[in-house]
Amino acid sequence: MMNNSIDAYLDEKKEIIDQALARFLPDSETSQVASAMHYSVKAGGKRLRPILTLTAAEIYGVKADSILEIAVAIELVHSYSLIHDDLPAMDDSDLRRGRPACHIVFGEAVAILAGDALLTLAFELVAAFGLREKKEKDALKICISLAKAAGSEGLIGGQELDLRAEGKNLSMEEIEIIAELKTGALFRAALNCGALAVPAPANELEILDRYALKIGKAFQIIDDLLDEEATATELGKPSGADRKSAKATHTALMGNAAARGRAESLYLEAVEKLRELEKDTEVLAALAAKLVYRKK
Amino acid sequence: MMNNSIDAYLDEKKEIIDQALARFLPDSETSQVASAMHYSVKAGGKRLRPILTLTAAEIYGVKADSILEIAVAIELVHSYSLIHDDLPAMDDSDLRRGRPACHIVFGEAVAILAGDALLTLAFELVAAFGLREKKEKDALKICISLAKAAGSEGLIGGQELDLRAEGKNLSMEEIEIIAELKTGALFRAALNCGALAVPAPANELEILDRYALKIGKAFQIIDDLLDEEATATELGKPSGADRKSAKATHTALMGNAAARGRAESLYLEAVEKLRELEKDTEVLAALAAKLVYRKK
Repeated sequence: MMNNSIDAYLDEKKEIIDQALARFLPDSETSQVASAMHYSVKAGGKRLRPILTLTAAEIYGVKADSILEIAVAIELVHSYSLIHDDLPAMDDSDLRRGRPACHIVFGEAVAILAGDALLTLAFELVAAFGLREKKEKDALKICISLAKAAGSEGLIGGQELDLRAEGKNLSMEEIEIIAELKTGALFRAALNCGALAVPAPANELEILDRYALKIGKAFQIIDDLLDEEATATELGKPSGADRKSAKATHTALMGNAAARGRAESLYLEAVEKLRELEKDTEVLAALAAKLVYRKK
Repeated sequence: MMNNSIDAYLDEKKEIIDQALARFLPDSETSQVASAMHYSVKAGGKRLRPILTLTAAEIYGVKADSILEIAVAIELVHSYSLIHDDLPAMDDSDLRRGRPACHIVFGEAVAILAGDALLTLAFELVAAFGLREKKEKDALKICISLAKAAGSEGLIGGQELDLRAEGKNLSMEEIEIIAELKTGALFRAALNCGALAVPAPANELEILDRYALKIGKAFQIIDDLLDEEATATELGKPSGADRKSAKATHTALMGNAAARGRAESLYLEAVEKLRELEKDTEVLAALAAKLVYRKK
């Protein structure tokens, strides 16, 4: 797939996700919490995770329209985790995607509640999908997949390890475990939930999961690299923030060039994995390239 | 039902809930977050909400053993909401049920994450119930019921209104709306989810919902009364805390005697409602009496 056609694909899918998000969120006029939910969700992310969900289903001929709740649920969990991670008691980050963080605009109490509400809404949407599409059993499996990715052995576990790692010297293995939980878990759930909505056969779910694990790791390494290299203006958050708070990253441990090399190897392994799927996985391969060779 | 037999019933059911909670929570040794989850859940609540869930199903002959995940999910959502409500940015409460609040023991970051993890686990358990019992559609409806009760038009909405109400003069109507959201919503979900797990017919769900709404309100009024009357030692939290932070309550607005009268009327209405159900609702009636005539 050519570079400009993957860009067009991403734009098209992002538009679909953005419209669905606007549709499924509560009216922003109704409360401060609803307003904060909109503020954070609309902050202009690339929607990579929900796009992966749509793409996973698309491989099996399932159209985006029929699984929008699932894709949105993935993005809501991502958005909730960013709000809570940014809180003063956590990473204490004032900026997110170039704008003031949720708690800066709405205060801590509303930010905590908005995160809670996004997480809650995610599960409501998964259930609504199951009833609407009469895919009850698949929806329950998606619910469990999403909960495990978000839970104490996923995002939450990763955030806890990350907080405890501040200022410590971590081994490469420890760094990878944190990246697997903080980023990998939701990338994996994004693919898994999209494929469960088909539902795809178990062995193919497994292949997609290996792909997701690898691109999740690669994505995190590139994130750290961009954090090192970028200026605050380009990235939308204080540059070198991770280094300043002495967080252990691939770049800190092995240097930028080697870290980039590691991300590129993971990309190649991810694409290699896709070959085992006897499907048209061109878009997934192009998405993996996009994640690794992005400039922001 | 005699007073001592309802006490025995409550003790028996509490024991079942406590054992199920211990079984479904992650091993407390695995992380600080898991440890905080145990700490808060084990804090020795009366388990009223999950007992209502079990009782609602029992009316239809459904045994506690087959819906434990649902009852536990209700208690986890309750427990999560207490952890987040106690945070410094919210109600800033250092004591909960006579012990230091979660964030006092584990720090704010872990407390936020423990709340998040309990909420997440609740939905995972509902989904697990549906797959295990092959009640997929019912489980999805339970998921939606629980999400609505917890979400921005339930607990979260109530907490937002409550925070904004501090120091303001509220009308009786406004006070009732907050009580309906903060307490009523989860009482209603407790009954609703238990009955959905049967599943009970729609018109009977409606009757149980009216009962739940009324006892939820009565419960909140009695809570406020006990807060007024009790000493810190008896109640396990600073007495008169609500009055000190100038929160509007029934007692503040109409005085203790009239507030108790209102709670008793609600109790009578709730029991009256149960008569419309052509079932043995003796236990639900006894539970309602217990909620209103409790001393702590």
